[in-house]
Formats: sequence, structure tokens, C-alpha cells
Amino acid sequence: MDSTKLHELLQAVRSGDVSPDEAVSRLRHMPFEDLGFARIDHHRRVRSGMPEVIFSQGKTPAQVSKIFKHMAAQGGNVLATRATPEHFRAVKKIVRKSEYRELARAIVLKQDPTAYGKGTIVVISAGTSDIPVAEEALVTAEIMGNEVAHLYDVGVAGIHRLLAGREVMEKARVIIVCAGMEGALPSVVGGLARVPVIAVPTSVGYGASFDGLAALLGMLNSCASNVSVVNIDNGFGAGYVASMINRL
Amino acid sequence: MDSTKLHELLQAVRSGDVSPDEAVSRLRHMPFEDLGFARIDHHRRVRSGMPEVIFSQGKTPAQVSKIFKHMAAQGGNVLATRATPEHFRAVKKIVRKSEYRELARAIVLKQDPTAYGKGTIVVISAGTSDIPVAEEALVTAEIMGNEVAHLYDVGVAGIHRLLAGREVMEKARVIIVCAGMEGALPSVVGGLARVPVIAVPTSVGYGASFDGLAALLGMLNSCASNVSVVNIDNGFGAGYVASMINRL
Amino acid sequence: MDSTKLHELLQAVRSGDVSPDEAVSRLRHMPFEDLGFARIDHHRRVRSGMPEVIFSQGKTPAQVSKIFKHMAAQGGNVLATRATPEHFRAVKKIVRKSEYRELARAIVLKQDPTAYGKGTIVVISAGTSDIPVAEEALVTAEIMGNEVAHLYDVGVAGIHRLLAGREVMEKARVIIVCAGMEGALPSVVGGLARVPVIAVPTSVGYGASFDGLAALLGMLNSCASNVSVVNIDNGFGAGYVASMINRL
Amino acid sequence: MDSTKLHELLQAVRSGDVSPDEAVSRLRHMPFEDLGFARIDHHRRVRSGMPEVIFSQGKTPAQVSKIFKHMAAQGGNVLATRATPEHFRAVKKIVRKSEYRELARAIVLKQDPTAYGKGTIVVISAGTSDIPVAEEALVTAEIMGNEVAHLYDVGVAGIHRLLAGREVMEKARVIIVCAGMEGALPSVVGGLARVPVIAVPTSVGYGASFDGLAALLGMLNSCASNVSVVNIDNGFGAGYVASMINRL
Amino acid sequence: MDSTKLHELLQAVRSGDVSPDEAVSRLRHMPFEDLGFARIDHHRRVRSGMPEVIFSQGKTPAQVSKIFKHMAAQGGNVLATRATPEHFRAVKKIVRKSEYRELARAIVLKQDPTAYGKGTIVVISAGTSDIPVAEEALVTAEIMGNEVAHLYDVGVAGIHRLLAGREVMEKARVIIVCAGMEGALPSVVGGLARVPVIAVPTSVGYGASFDGLAALLGMLNSCASNVSVVNIDNGFGAGYVASMINRL
Amino acid sequence: MDSTKLHELLQAVRSGDVSPDEAVSRLRHMPFEDLGFARIDHHRRVRSGMPEVIFSQGKTPAQVSKIFKHMAAQGGNVLATRATPEHFRAVKKIVRKSEYRELARAIVLKQDPTAYGKGTIVVISAGTSDIPVAEEALVTAEIMGNEVAHLYDVGVAGIHRLLAGREVMEKARVIIVCAGMEGALPSVVGGLARVPVIAVPTSVGYGASFDGLAALLGMLNSCASNVSVVNIDNGFGAGYVASMINRL
Amino acid sequence: MDSTKLHELLQAVRSGDVSPDEAVSRLRHMPFEDLGFARIDHHRRVRSGMPEVIFSQGKTPAQVSKIFKHMAAQGGNVLATRATPEHFRAVKKIVRKSEYRELARAIVLKQDPTAYGKGTIVVISAGTSDIPVAEEALVTAEIMGNEVAHLYDVGVAGIHRLLAGREVMEKARVIIVCAGMEGALPSVVGGLARVPVIAVPTSVGYGASFDGLAALLGMLNSCASNVSVVNIDNGFGAGYVASMINRL
Amino acid sequence: MDSTKLHELLQAVRSGDVSPDEAVSRLRHMPFEDLGFARIDHHRRVRSGMPEVIFSQGKTPAQVSKIFKHMAAQGGNVLATRATPEHFRAVKKIVRKSEYRELARAIVLKQDPTAYGKGTIVVISAGTSDIPVAEEALVTAEIMGNEVAHLYDVGVAGIHRLLAGREVMEKARVIIVCAGMEGALPSVVGGLARVPVIAVPTSVGYGASFDGLAALLGMLNSCASNVSVVNIDNGFGAGYVASMINRL
Repeated sequence: MDSTKLHELLQAVRSGDVSPDEAVSRLRHMPFEDLGFARIDHHRRVRSGMPEVIFSQGKTPAQVSKIFKHMAAQGGNVLATRATPEHFRAVKKIVRKSEYRELARAIVLKQDPTAYGKGTIVVISAGTSDIPVAEEALVTAEIMGNEVAHLYDVGVAGIHRLLAGREVMEKARVIIVCAGMEGALPSVVGGLARVPVIAVPTSVGYGASFDGLAALLGMLNSCASNVSVVNIDNGFGAGYVASMINRL
Repeated sequence: MDSTKLHELLQAVRSGDVSPDEAVSRLRHMPFEDLGFARIDHHRRVRSGMPEVIFSQGKTPAQVSKIFKHMAAQGGNVLATRATPEHFRAVKKIVRKSEYRELARAIVLKQDPTAYGKGTIVVISAGTSDIPVAEEALVTAEIMGNEVAHLYDVGVAGIHRLLAGREVMEKARVIIVCAGMEGALPSVVGGLARVPVIAVPTSVGYGASFDGLAALLGMLNSCASNVSVVNIDNGFGAGYVASMINRL
Repeated sequence: MDSTKLHELLQAVRSGDVSPDEAVSRLRHMPFEDLGFARIDHHRRVRSGMPEVIFSQGKTPAQVSKIFKHMAAQGGNVLATRATPEHFRAVKKIVRKSEYRELARAIVLKQDPTAYGKGTIVVISAGTSDIPVAEEALVTAEIMGNEVAHLYDVGVAGIHRLLAGREVMEKARVIIVCAGMEGALPSVVGGLARVPVIAVPTSVGYGASFDGLAALLGMLNSCASNVSVVNIDNGFGAGYVASMINRL
Repeated sequence: MDSTKLHELLQAVRSGDVSPDEAVSRLRHMPFEDLGFARIDHHRRVRSGMPEVIFSQGKTPAQVSKIFKHMAAQGGNVLATRATPEHFRAVKKIVRKSEYRELARAIVLKQDPTAYGKGTIVVISAGTSDIPVAEEALVTAEIMGNEVAHLYDVGVAGIHRLLAGREVMEKARVIIVCAGMEGALPSVVGGLARVPVIAVPTSVGYGASFDGLAALLGMLNSCASNVSVVNIDNGFGAGYVASMINRL
Repeated sequence: MDSTKLHELLQAVRSGDVSPDEAVSRLRHMPFEDLGFARIDHHRRVRSGMPEVIFSQGKTPAQVSKIFKHMAAQGGNVLATRATPEHFRAVKKIVRKSEYRELARAIVLKQDPTAYGKGTIVVISAGTSDIPVAEEALVTAEIMGNEVAHLYDVGVAGIHRLLAGREVMEKARVIIVCAGMEGALPSVVGGLARVPVIAVPTSVGYGASFDGLAALLGMLNSCASNVSVVNIDNGFGAGYVASMINRL
Repeated sequence: MDSTKLHELLQAVRSGDVSPDEAVSRLRHMPFEDLGFARIDHHRRVRSGMPEVIFSQGKTPAQVSKIFKHMAAQGGNVLATRATPEHFRAVKKIVRKSEYRELARAIVLKQDPTAYGKGTIVVISAGTSDIPVAEEALVTAEIMGNEVAHLYDVGVAGIHRLLAGREVMEKARVIIVCAGMEGALPSVVGGLARVPVIAVPTSVGYGASFDGLAALLGMLNSCASNVSVVNIDNGFGAGYVASMINRL
Repeated sequence: MDSTKLHELLQAVRSGDVSPDEAVSRLRHMPFEDLGFARIDHHRRVRSGMPEVIFSQGKTPAQVSKIFKHMAAQGGNVLATRATPEHFRAVKKIVRKSEYRELARAIVLKQDPTAYGKGTIVVISAGTSDIPVAEEALVTAEIMGNEVAHLYDVGVAGIHRLLAGREVMEKARVIIVCAGMEGALPSVVGGLARVPVIAVPTSVGYGASFDGLAALLGMLNSCASNVSVVNIDNGFGAGYVASMINRL
Repeated sequence: MDSTKLHELLQAVRSGDVSPDEAVSRLRHMPFEDLGFARIDHHRRVRSGMPEVIFSQGKTPAQVSKIFKHMAAQGGNVLATRATPEHFRAVKKIVRKSEYRELARAIVLKQDPTAYGKGTIVVISAGTSDIPVAEEALVTAEIMGNEVAHLYDVGVAGIHRLLAGREVMEKARVIIVCAGMEGALPSVVGGLARVPVIAVPTSVGYGASFDGLAALLGMLNSCASNVSVVNIDNGFGAGYVASMINRL
């Protein structure tokens, strides 16, 4: 039962064709969705500057480009994560203004220049191998309308490098920290910063890093209280959470 | 070398008693802390309304009451988590205005009535057994100067109960979701809400819940993008992160 | 907005006090629950012979007896699982007709004699230590209105004992198999039977049984295709699933 | 000793050539199988509409096609799971009426049109990546003689989509739910439905999904009591269990 | 149908009262057990010198003494493992000749002096904390009729102690090695010995020993090819396997 | 210091050129190996019919053929496990009498026809996919001079097939059981047999089999006391242990 | 055969009573230990200042005091780790000069004042809860004859506290770092220091710390190259390794 | 603010252009790094003979050769670990004096012949498959200016081989032990040696070795007190730690 049918029902109540009792009974079995809540959801996404997002991994270039085109037509920004150069070539043919962020493995289309975020999101990474995840977070934050800055290769074994970057850190309204191996960086950053820190464990490492498990456990046990954690290698999720916070 | 000593050194430079070269050399070996950064930290905590916090577990009632008294003297709010009634009795004798929040297993002292948070923090829990963790989050948020509200016993197996609570959820600027067993609630809440969701896995469950591991993994893999996670049973951490976000 | 309010709204539509447009708008914001779905749920549970269930573990005797009394007043059967003799003493004082099933660690109240199940549910256990879990499944099935039978201590290392019990097995419309240690029994039973088998791993064992993990993994990997699995020690869940199947 | 030999032995008893004592002794060492039980098994499978099934993974196209042909000759339905297009090409050459269900990665041969199931089996999946597992379940149920329906891409982060599909769900006599990542969908479906729910964790996800472990643990800890679980990615098993239930 | 009934049936065949065809049909449904196989099992255990065994853990003193008495009446040896002094006091009252082996936590009754084993079983332990498990293995081997010897506290970090015990080792027909912590001893013993080595990981250790997991994995990965492994702390199992080998 | 040097030293003692004190001192630093123990080891291996063994995995065809040739020259049997057809082609060129056992992925050279084993080793496998591991065990036992027999595809879900093979089982002096998935077969076989059972978990399975972990844990928790276990997929180890037992 | 017997044998060779050939043969079977190597070991321990050590956990006060007395008689230092006050009371009665280090849970007897270490061993701990493990390391280092210093409660979330302690750190020849939770401190210390760092994960934490596993994995994955790790809570091991290094 | 700027500031203080108060304020915000600490770090590395190190895995040949060239220009030794022949070809073109150590998978450039280490570092490996890791440790130690020796293929199942190598072991000031499978070798070596032992678990093995986890746990639980552990396959880390110790 959609809005039209609801109108008809209520008209029938008004005209006396349907009794209020009967109408109550019919309404009780009316599917939730058809009241229009879901439709509002879809509209709200675009209006609010949330990008449409495609997780490209496991999809063919043809599939990604088809979805991308469809999303681009909504008028908002579009983001395709975990995209290969092959994915991009297919998208580029159809959506000429799309760009490829190689480090982030992301395809982006910027159609909405609005600055939705109130402050700067700073992305910090421990090692150079963590950069793809960090860049995914950065691109996500950017495409969602935030000022961004970054501080890379400031692992805890050379703490002076991190301290040297304090000025950048102090500009942040939200901080994202990406680290593999022992995943210690969010604790140190969390201790230095006065803002929320989103920690992203990466699968960088070998042996007892167990594909990011060591970093994940480290971050969950952070002795800094302003740290919360997302899934291993989930740069997108971190960028999304940070953006949502930065809009508050 | 603290600020006083730094002043003296600079005065000596001015007076010519110490050459600039010599001063550079002395400054190079100057401990970081003594420049006053750390002391500022301590002051800032109190000034900013962050409560002083004691993790009571593993401490004797005598230890907790002694630390509590010391902290109370700073003039800000004080919070002791994981506190037993025995802990409270010891504290109560010394700090008469302290109160015990039984469900939260927390001792609180409210001395600072300032509202630091800009909106409401809503705490949601899946089952009645998750309430101690949820209450710890709630009390933490409250003692840090936030409006709080809660919605308990709205597990995903009875989704209508959660939907019935939408009104409460929509008031939230930040949401905390506590759940044990399969830990599915943050995904559902994350999908319904437009604000950051802090997920707290609890150790509620048995068998293959593996003391909260199942809930933890579930939350880390949430298909809702606005969810980040803290440690198992870490209600305090969730309340702290949420408070920090709510001040932005 | 509950049914009464819905009636009032529809009367207002009929009388012309509220336009259909206005009514659509109000209905769109109407909370789901208040349409009465949830209340119907509660009613349906009792009408359908599903017992009201209390998970007693972690609750005080006073809490359990209070909830039990409340549930007993609904008129259907009541089941309290993981109940100690202390729990029972408290319940017995208030609900005189309640009984304690010691092996199953369950308190039951039978008020509804209806046979909801169409066939017999047979509960099989591997060792004598698995009997508490098996009995919990049995009592659950019984209190939900099923014919039940059992076959205990028929572990796979003495396969002739199981084969000797084939007659009992062949009476089953649904079979529940409880086993700890290597958890092999469901595969053997699944191979012999032509009906759905619900496997319950138990935490019986030591060392590399890892509190039921070995049995759980064994059952999930069963080479018999008619086996599905519930949580470790979850006799109640198995009894519930089996009952639901037996009503079809 | 098969039936013929048993007859001969009994004839010899009748004729007095073999004494009853001697016959008892010989019978005691008589292999179980040769009494014909096993042979009945094979016959019963075909007569009962259970399909013959091949697990193609790890087998060559030649092996699969040879077994397929042999099974097809029994006259019942045949199902080859985890089959590649290469497997199908080999089968197609020999069994012309065989079909390839690409999404399900299954080769099917329908020779028996009997409807063995009494109601409809509904297959629900959380995300589009879970569809191969869901389709394997669907095809299995179909080839075993059941009415089937499905509801795909109704993950818990967009709960309105699931609620919109309630009508389909309510037709079900048995429900199969396939979900990766946090595996929360079976709990929500289990709470909404009044029928047995078979949960299939899928290996969809990354990082802390640990190849389906997160979803598996989530489902085992489901707070909905009518849920039982099969192995990760075991769409076939779920379809088989559901079919067995639907015949009751 | 037991032997008597089988005789009656065959007599009826002989007399012509039952046709061979009818007899075949009846035999086909005859339960396996009743042919007497299982009864033979029970008899064989006693005749063969295998002790009757009780796993005392989780049983009350009354239960253990009752079972013990029943088993003692069969005339063979009896062994109760994981028995406390309380268990023993209860048994002693009823079976006066029973003895308590304190180190092994075992109650034994020797009624059968037969030497079933052909050679000596040598039990080796790494540390003094492994002795309870080693003694359980030793007592099991002894009560099953084997010559036994032992070599304790010969861990791999003092390899000369083990080498000094070579003489004892060389007397062995089968060797049992019990070790916790890193579980390295079976590899060294396996390399020195020319006989089968049964390795028993013990739960001795702390931290990353994970209750015996480290030792278990170490033993399963032994670079000595003559090593096989039983469950953590399963001294009884090792003694049983070794005894079975020693009878060959 | 080898035997020759030892002789020279003792001659010098006899002649008085070296004092007994000096000789004691020199002997104390004498390397263990040079006393000839190790050399005896190498000789003993060949004399005793233990085959020389090469683990081919990770070695080039050239490396395997070179080692194989060297070992063949010792005159005993030679076994190369985990060998590919490429490995075999390289070996065949140099050692013409070598043979490839395709199912077992093994290259063998039989030069020593002696029957070292006293009885028959029976190898049992649960499924057809377990056959490579079972064949590796079989070939190992054979090349070590044992009578062998096998019973394949007798998984526990079709228990009658196993029971039908009892005759083969009863010929065994030692039994090897290979099974993946739930690894239940050794428990059933262990319960039926009166001889030592060596269990080999295989990595056959998917999802929650976790590459053989489920089968491994199942076997370690076997409720049959005559079962001991080797590493996942370690057919060679099982064959070796069984051979060592069969020589006793 | 000990040294005396060896002398006798050589005298017999000299006198001609035993031929060199016969002597070679006898020597070949001579047990390794009896050549005196092991006895030298025992002597060397005392002479070298290595303390005699007792792991008290799991031992009775009577056992500990008996062993302690025996060891004290050797004249060197004695250390009993994991000792309770009860253990100490028993020891104190017999060895009057023994002392109890409460924080370290250690009983010590200092009889040997020699400074075996060449520099200072600095023990650093992250939180106050890590102090028992840190003190165990400190006492071990001290009793083995080292200068010691410590720096406690300098966790990474307050990095300025650690930096303020640089002066202490720079005095170190070897550093021991004890940390629970995320175990990040060794990486930071390792990056600041130019000396070997021994990392000790502690079981301090809750939830996803999994009793020290998170800290252990973090330390094994340290991005600082001068870090090596010992077992969880193994303060003694760290103190021992550090002492051995400090003697070089 | 670097040293120059610091000089200028102090000159301005002296000249009276900047007041001491203003100078204190500016100094308080002065970045740590710019005080010159970090620069000293970089210089110190080269001066101290620590090699510059590249982790080649995951880098392109072009990237590795570019970094290598840059590092070579500093004048010290250079080490590239986990390097393929392709990496080497690219480096060789640019840095002619570079060499490839094939077994160690390392590219080295020796420009600094200084012997920084005081004694010999001995590298021991259990099996031939552990040699790549052992060689990485060896090359690292060598390039850091140490005397090195090795002892390969001395696994614990043939303990005489290890004992035969005691002479080599006794020359060591530090020992590195590399072992996969059960990882037992460090315990045996630790028991024989009087020097620090660095244990390196390798991922050599299969099945229950779980890619080095078994060896790692074994080594962490070593019963020899002089053993500390680095990450799985981390030959470089072991060489680095050992070198640091050997310089003391």
C-alpha cells in the first residue's frame, strides 16, 4: 500500500464506503516500506552530500561502470573503492569527468562542491605500506565534503617524527590513524590529541601479524580513551565515520 | 627544567652571563616534560570537564578511596568504574557527596554542573544482561557533562521494539549501542540513524560467544558504515569517545 | 499512537474534521509498535503454545520468581532454564504447581495440555555427561507440546549401542543429538535417519575440546546433509527449533 | 552373505543339512551390509526424490561428467554443486537435458517433476555477494521438489527493505538466510518469522570477517530461538535440511 | 531378537512352520545388538584384561563408589581416574582392597595379575609438574598388565639428564612422553628411540602456553616420525594406546 | 675424535706416553658424535629396512633426483613424498627402476623385499578426497616392508558401509584412519577394533573445517581410547608410526 | 661410569689388564652424564652467580621452604618467584636471612654480593598494574648481580611521561619493558634507545586483550628492530635474559 | 625551528629585541624535531655502523634500486632484505659493487669494514628449509660488522648432530636459532649454551604448524631461561638484536 492507496483508503473512510474499524484493520497489515520511509532514505542520501559508494572488488569493469553511470546521474558525488586501473578505464569511457586516485585505488566523481564538514579531518599512517588504506580514508573524507590533511610514515619507533607533526595534528577536528604490525600508533596519537581518533588496523606485516589481527587487537586495547576502531583495512569506513562526526 | 628555570636561563642570556651557543646546547638536553606541556595536560583535564577516572577492579577499597579523595580535591567530577559496594562504602566515608550507581557499578562525584556536550547521547542495549555495560557508558557520558537518554532491551530478534523507539533515537547527536551474543544491533541502529554509532560488544552469552568475541567480530564487520567499535565490555570507553564527539 | 488513537483519527476523517491528506501525513510518522503488532506478538505466543521462557543464569531467585509468577498469569506453559535449586525454592513458594526437573536444571509449569507437535521428537546423547543439555532440550520440547523420547549414552565408540536403538530413532519426526568431545554422533545419526537432525555441541571434554569448540566444528563439518547446528550447550534452542519443525 | 546366500542357508536349515545351532553361528558373522540394508538405501534415495549429488570442486570435468551420467541413469533428479562452466560443458555433451545455473554454480537435471515439499521454501540473502550461496540453496531446494521463492539484498543496515519483503517471508514454511560480514540477518528474520530458519554464514567480507568466522559465530549466538546453522558457504546443506523439513 | 529367539526362528524354519522367505524377511529387520555382538564386547573386555575404567571428575563420591563396586564384581582390574581423596574414601569403604595412587589421582583395584604386555612401557616426563599426567599413564599401563618404568624431570633444556637416562629408554618396547610448555621432549626422545612414542601434551605452563595448546601443536609438528599424539593431559589415553601396542 | 683416534689415545695410555689423568681430561672434551653413535644410526636405518625418505615439496626436480640417486645407492628402499610428475620424470631418468604412485604423490624404489612387519596394516579413509593422504600412508607402510590392505570411502554418515568392511578391519594388526571434515571416523573404527588406531586428520573440507583443524580437534577428543593422532595430512607419519608398531 | 671409574678403566689399560679394543668398546656405552659434564653444570651455576630459582606456584609452603633451604646451602643467591606470603612465612622460619619482595611476589636470599653485570638494567612498565611483572624482572636482575633502575607508569597514551624519563633510559645497558593491553611501549622505547630491549607482555587488560595475547602479538610485530620478546607475564625470564646480556 | 633559528632567537634575547617571556612562549611551541634530535639520529645510524635497511617485499625493482642508491651515498653498509633476483638486477645496474646473497634473499653493499661486534654470532638452524631465514640473520649480523659462524640442519630429532657441533656453539657470544615445525631447538640450545639465545620461529611446516604459530608458541614457552623470541621468519630482526647485544 503506497501513498496513493492510502489516500484512496482515507477517501473511502471519509465517504463512508469504508468504516473506521475496517480501515484500522487494513492499516494493521500495511507494509512499512510503502508508507514512503524508504524512498525518503534514498533522496536524503543525495541531498545530504553522502556520496554513492561502490565496493568494486569482485565486480567486473562492466558492472562497475554501469553502476557508476547510474549513480552519477543522481547529481551527487560518486566513489568506487578497491578499484583497479581496469575498472577505471571502463568507468572513464562512460563518465568522462571521473578521476582515478591510484594510491587510494579509488575512482571519484566530484559533482557537489559543498563543504559539509565543519573542520579538518587529519589522516595519519604509521608506515609507507599503510598508505593505500590511509588514502582510501582520505579520499572518502574528501568526497564527502571535508577539508583533509595527512601525516604519513610517522610510526612509533621514531616518535620524534610524530612529535614534529604535532602542528598538523592540532588542526584536526577528527583524526584517522592507519597502522599495521603492532598497531600502536592510535594510542600515542590518542594520548597527544584532544579529539576523537578513528583507528584503522591494516593487514601490513607478516608472521604473527596474522593479516592484521595483531594490529586490530592492539587498537581495541588502546590505553587512550578517545580511540574507536573499524575493520582491518577499512579505510572507507574510517573516512565515513569521521565525516559523519565532522558534520556535527 | 621548568618554566622558571627556562626564564632564568633566558635572563642569563640577556644579561650576557650565558652565551647563545651555550644556551642552545643546554636547551637541546632539556627534558620535554619540563617545558610545561605535561602540567598543562593535567590542568586542562580539570578545566575541560573531563572527569578524573579510577579503574577500581583489582584495587582495594582503601586504595580507591584514597585516590578518589585526592581527585575530588581538584574540584572537577570524579568517576570510579568497576566499583563494588565495598569500594563505595570506603569512598563514602571520606567523600560524603559521592554516589553509587549500582547498575553501572560506578561511584560518581558531581562537582561541575557545566553542560559540555552540545546534544544528547543515546545509549541503546540489546538485552537486559547488557545493562551494566550500557549504564557504565551512560554514567560516563553524564559525568562528562552530556544530556543522556537510553533505550534498553531492544534486541534484533524483536525488531518492532527497536522501531518503536525511533523517536528516542532521532534525538541523538551520538549513539552508543551495547550488545552481546551475535552483536547485530549496531548494524540495525547504524542503518536507521544518521549520526555516529559507537558499538560496545559485551561478554554476555555462552558457548560460541567466546566471552564477547562473537559480538566483537560482528560489530567490526558491520554493514553499516557509521559504526566504530571499542573493546569488549568497555562501556567507559564508549561513553568517553561519545562525549568527545558531542563536544565538537 | 495506539488503536484507540487510530480509531479517533479515522473518525475525524469520516466526520471531515481531518482531511485525508492530513491523515496520511500523521500516519506516516506513526510509530510501528503502536499499531498493535507487538501486542499481537505477545498474545500469539500464548495462544500458540510457545512457552514463556526465563534464562535464569545471572538472575537472583527473587527476580526469577517474580518474572515466573507474571508469566504464569498469562495462562500458558512456563519454562525457566539454567535454574538452580535456589531458584526453584523461590518460585515454588509463589507458583505452587511449578516443578523442578533436576537433570535439566529447569523449572516448568504445565498449564496448557495441548499437543501442538505432530510427531515424536527424539533426543539422543553421546555420553552421560551430556545428559543435562539433552534433558534441557527434552523438557523444552515437552513443555512446547510435543511427544518426546530419548536414547542416552550411545556414543560412536560403541556403535552397536546406537544401532540397537534404531527402533526408537525410527519413531522420530525430528531428532536432537547432543554430544561433546569430538561431536561425531550427529553425523552417524544423520546418516541413519531420514528426518531433520538438530545437533547440539556440549562443553563436555577437556584439553583440546576447548570447551565445546571441537564438537562445534565437528558438527558444522558433518558429512551428513540433514544436520544443522545450534550453540554450544544450547539444549533449549535445539528443543525450540525441533518443536517449531514438529508443528509444520 | 547376500539375500541369495541367506535363502540357501535357510533352505539348508529346512532340509536339515544345516542345524539351527550351526545357522545361528554363521548368521552371527554375517556382514551387515549383505542383508540388503545398504541396497535399500540406494533405492530409497531415488524413490524418495532425493537428488543424487556431486561435489564438483576438486574433480576434473571428465570425472564429473562420468559420475553425472551414471547418476542420471537412475531416473531421478541430479545435482552437481560447485561446478564451473568447464564442468558443465563436459556434462552437457553426455547428458543433453542437463542445465547450468550460473549464479548457483550448479548443474541440474530434472527428470522427476514430483512436488515432495508441502510448502514454500524462501531463501533470503543479505548482500549481492551472498547470492551464489543463496542460489545454491535455492537450486537444491528446487531440485528436491519444493516450491521456492527468494528475497535478496535485504541486509540489516537497511531494515526497511526487509520489512517491505514481509509478505514473501510470510508465505514460507521454512526460511533459509544467507549472510556474510556480521551475519546478523538470521536473528532479525528469526524474530519476524514463525517458522524454522536455517542460517548459512558466507565467506563474504574481509579483514576481521576471517573468511566467514564472524558470520558463523554471530549466527550461532543468535538471540532468535528458531535459528539453526550450517557450515560456511554451505548453501547445499541448507537447501537439503530445509527440503527435509518441508516434507514433514 | 536375541540368540534364543533366533534359535526359535530357525527351529520354525526347520519344522516348516516358517518359510525361508518369511525368515529372510524377519531377519532383515532384526536389531544388530540382539545377535549378541554387544554382549560379547562386554565379556571380551574382562577376559582380555582391559580394565574397567571410571572418569571420576564431575561425579560424586557416592556415584564413583557405586560404579566401582559394580565393576569390581566382574573380577577384572578396575581403574578410576581423576579421583580425589574424597572419591577414594567412598570407594575404600565398599571395596576394601582398592588403593589410592595419590600422584596419579587414581583409584586402582588389582584382581588380575596376568602380564598381558610383552615388553616394558617407559613413561618419561619433562618437568616435575608433568608428573600427575605421567603417573596416570603409568598406572593405566600397570593396571592393564604391563611392566613399567619411568624417567622424570628430564626436560630438553638439560639434555644431558635425558642422555644419562638412555639405558632406561633402551629397555622400552613403547615410550610415553609427557611434557607441557613447549612440548619439545617427544621430538628428542623420538629421535633417540627406535620404538613408538606416544606424546601427551600437558596443560603445565602459563601465558602463551594457552593451557597446553603450545605443547599440543609442538608435538603434532614433531620432526621425529615415530611420534603420535593424544589429547592434552590425557595420561589415561596414552597408557591405553601404549598397552594395546605392547600386547601385539 | 673418532674410533681410530680413540684407539691411538688408549694405545698411548698403555704405552705410558699419556697418563690416565690426561686421558680423562681429553675424553671429557671428546665430541659425542665421533664416538660413532651417529654413524651407527645411518647404517642401522638401511639394515633395518627403514626407507630413506625425501620430502619433495619445495625442492626442484633436480634436487630431488640428485638426493634420490644418492639414497638409492645405499641399497635400501627409497621414498619421495609430495612428489609431482615433474619430480618423477627427473628421478626416472637417473633411477630407472623407480616408480610413481600417482594417487599417493610418491616416488618409490623397492630394492629390499624383506617383510619387516609381522601383521597387516589396514588404511581406512572417510571420503574419496582423503585418498591422497591415505595412499601416502599405504605406500609408506608398504615400502617399509608391511602387508597392507585398505578400505576407502566408508564415512560415518553411511555407517553400514563401514560395518560391511569389518572383515578387512579384523585382519589388521594396526589401523590407520584418514578423515577430513568432522574427523569422526577414527572414533567409530576405534570402537569396533581391538588394535591401535593411528588417526590422520586431512585438510579436506571448507568453511569451518579451517583446513583440517576441525578434523584434528575431533580426533584428539576421540571417545575411543585406542586412538592417537598425527599432523594434518601427514600420511607419511601415520605409515611410519604404524610400521614401527607392526615390527614389535 | 663417573670420573673415578674412568680413571680405573684407564689404569687397567695402562697396566695391560684391559686391552685398548676392550676399552673403546666400554667407553662407547658410557653414559654421557657420568663423564661429569652435568656435575660441572651444577657447580658452574653457583660459581657464576646465577641464582638458584624456585617457581613457587603450585608448590606447598613446605615444599618451597625445603627446596629453598637446600639451595641456600650452596652458598649462592636464591630466588623463589610467584611466592605468596604463606610461602614466605614457611621459608623465613628456616632461612632467617631470606626477604620477601611483596610487589614482585618473590622471596630472595642474598649471599653473594658480586657485581656480575657490567652496566645498568632498566625496567620500564606501562601501567601500575604491570608492576608485579616488572618487579619480578627487577628482583631477578638484582639477585643475579646487576645494577638496576626503573621507570614505571609511562604508557604510550601519555608519551611526555616517557620522554621525561629519557635520562634514566639513557643509563641503560639493557632495557626490559613490561606492558599489557596493546603492548605498544616496547616499540616506542626501542625507537628511542640504542640498546637491546627485552619485551614482556603482561596479562593486564580485559576483553580483547585475551589474557595478554594482544600485547604479545603487538610486541612480536614491533616496528623497532632491537626488540625481542619473552612469554606473557614472564618477568623472571626477562630479568634472566637481560642479566646474561649484561655480563657480556 | 632549527638550530639556526634557535640561535637567532637567543641572539634577539641577548640584544633585548625579544623579552625572555616572549622567548619562553615561542620555545613552548617549538617542534621537537627541529631541536635537532632527529637529524642526529640519522647521522648516528651511519656513524655507528648500523646498516641502512630496505624491506624489498611489495616494492618494485625500480623503487628498491632508487632507495638503495640513495642509501649507498651515505657511505655506510646497505642491506635490502626479501629481495628477488629482479630486485637485484635493478640495483646492480646502479650500484655496481652490490652483491646478491641468494640463500638469504638479500642484496648487500659493504662499504664499511669496521668490526663493531666484540665476539662471534652463531646462527643455528633446525632443518634445511629454515636456511633462508637463518641466512637472512647471518647476512644481517655480518653487514652490521660481526664475526659470524653457522651450524645448519641440527634438528632435535637427531640430537647427536647438535652435540657434535658444540665446539662451534661454544665460540658464540650470542646465538640465533631458527626453527619451524615444533620449534624445539632453541630450548635445547639454550640449555647447552651460556649466552643469550635469540629464537626465530619459521613458517616451515604444514597442517598444524599453522604457518609458524606452533614454532612461535613453542619458543615463547621455552623451558630454557636465556631465550627470547622475534616474529615468525624475522631473520633480519634476530640478526639486528644479536648485533646490538654483541656491541655491548
